[in-house]
Amino acid sequence: MFERFYSSQPKVTFYLTFPFKSKRTLYKHTINIRVRYAETDKMGYVYYGNYATYLEVGRVEMLRSIGVSYRRLEEEGVLLPVVNLNVDYKKPAFYDDNLTLETELMELPGVKIRFSYKLMRGEELLSLAQTTLVFLNAESGRPVKCPKEILTALTKL
Amino acid sequence: MFERFYSSQPKVTFYLTFPFKSKRTLYKHTINIRVRYAETDKMGYVYYGNYATYLEVGRVEMLRSIGVSYRRLEEEGVLLPVVNLNVDYKKPAFYDDNLTLETELMELPGVKIRFSYKLMRGEELLSLAQTTLVFLNAESGRPVKCPKEILTALTKL
Amino acid sequence: MFERFYSSQPKVTFYLTFPFKSKRTLYKHTINIRVRYAETDKMGYVYYGNYATYLEVGRVEMLRSIGVSYRRLEEEGVLLPVVNLNVDYKKPAFYDDNLTLETELMELPGVKIRFSYKLMRGEELLSLAQTTLVFLNAESGRPVKCPKEILTALTKL
Amino acid sequence: MFERFYSSQPKVTFYLTFPFKSKRTLYKHTINIRVRYAETDKMGYVYYGNYATYLEVGRVEMLRSIGVSYRRLEEEGVLLPVVNLNVDYKKPAFYDDNLTLETELMELPGVKIRFSYKLMRGEELLSLAQTTLVFLNAESGRPVKCPKEILTALTKL
Repeated sequence: MFERFYSSQPKVTFYLTFPFKSKRTLYKHTINIRVRYAETDKMGYVYYGNYATYLEVGRVEMLRSIGVSYRRLEEEGVLLPVVNLNVDYKKPAFYDDNLTLETELMELPGVKIRFSYKLMRGEELLSLAQTTLVFLNAESGRPVKCPKEILTALTKL
Repeated sequence: MFERFYSSQPKVTFYLTFPFKSKRTLYKHTINIRVRYAETDKMGYVYYGNYATYLEVGRVEMLRSIGVSYRRLEEEGVLLPVVNLNVDYKKPAFYDDNLTLETELMELPGVKIRFSYKLMRGEELLSLAQTTLVFLNAESGRPVKCPKEILTALTKL
Repeated sequence: MFERFYSSQPKVTFYLTFPFKSKRTLYKHTINIRVRYAETDKMGYVYYGNYATYLEVGRVEMLRSIGVSYRRLEEEGVLLPVVNLNVDYKKPAFYDDNLTLETELMELPGVKIRFSYKLMRGEELLSLAQTTLVFLNAESGRPVKCPKEILTALTKL
Repeated sequence: MFERFYSSQPKVTFYLTFPFKSKRTLYKHTINIRVRYAETDKMGYVYYGNYATYLEVGRVEMLRSIGVSYRRLEEEGVLLPVVNLNVDYKKPAFYDDNLTLETELMELPGVKIRFSYKLMRGEELLSLAQTTLVFLNAESGRPVKCPKEILTALTKL
């Protein structure tokens, strides 16, 4: 539906990739997400705010795939709130679509961790997104360095 | 909680305002939003995806304030999906907070309409956001110019 | 839409009102809720799970109207999770509807507090619902009697 | 957390099973659901309204398992809105829990279809729920008999 529009009028998106220092992928992870009825809106599309939930699932499952449990991280006193979200909606996702979400980490995390996402339906690119999260000490509320556990898991790859 | 972090390390956000041709505000509208329990997460913050809903409320109420009903727009065959969302989370919002959301329109809409948002708790700035939406003909799925009704309402201000 | 169906085939709902000892209303409170786009689904209706959020808003605002802040209650160590939810959907609610939600308390709360709800669009009855919540001590996780503050506020009415 | 409460004070729940004519299971289906961060609330529990989404996933996947696509059903002009929802919350579900949802159909559907659900975490029973849905003709908005496709699939089991 959006396709013709976007193909006839290429969108300038270079500002979106600006925050990333490097374009080389450090680690990439792929999962499937089935669209729930609850996530659609009266236009018949997945509501634009619900993509945030998909991205959350993408990065949590990426971490799990390298042996890091975000749940345990929190239990150990590290919070990881999102400080920036950017989503480019290119084509709508529909009810019951079996989407493919690629989550990429493009650099070693410091105090912040940045993920980049590609949401696809088969070969069709639906959305591009980026999130920046910051590691916080739950008690002090202050930013902290990325836990060693994550860095170790990443450098082993 | 985020405050110290952000004050000690000013975030470069100029790329966020890049898409706007002009920084002069065409029209500004303010509403209050009470945070619901459903919108919080286990960190005690408003879940980052739920800001999208607040922004929706902000722009719909702005349109209503100039006499434009988004509901009627859809009934007349114009859809207005979001094609870009950008949110900068500076400080968390909490349960039962009575937030103030300022929605700004900074230029006359064409095929697209861009809104800029400031979410505050009293004098505290919590978040900055921007959304870009595109006017679509519901039947053809093709982008169309902004309905005259909106342009007329805006130029009367 | 559902109307004909329900008028021609009266639904046996007596089991729904069973849990209430008395049908006399102790206290009734009314608020308006504007349906958000985020709350609709591809059928164009408010998604059935989102009614739970409306009910939450109804009971929290009822408590606020008698001077009780649910937020403060939690800060003082009392949690109030829902242990039963029952919703009868009679007619759908639509996007941008300005709904009226009546929340009723039909008996003085003990360890549990029961609310009964009527969701209307003007004169039209859309839904009936009931929720049962239990007062818990946040630390021990054990049920406790309704805080005096609430009982005092209720008996003053 | 709720456990002691419920074991020391057995809850009268017979009215919950009242609507079912028979207690024999016609068909039972089981899936796993991983709790998302978005689904939790500041108490750290899955927000009570989000169970409705889990139930939706349960019944849609049950239908898919017998060869019926709810998506296609809608495309063929049959809507299936929920007309009653009842949930008994016995113990909370937490972030990242890998839940097991059992969905049961206890009778052949007519104009309505009733599902019964059991939400477990391992061997622990967390919630019991029931939903009643009605088959509607999308054009007329009138209730219709359960599509033959579903009845045929069910009687083949």
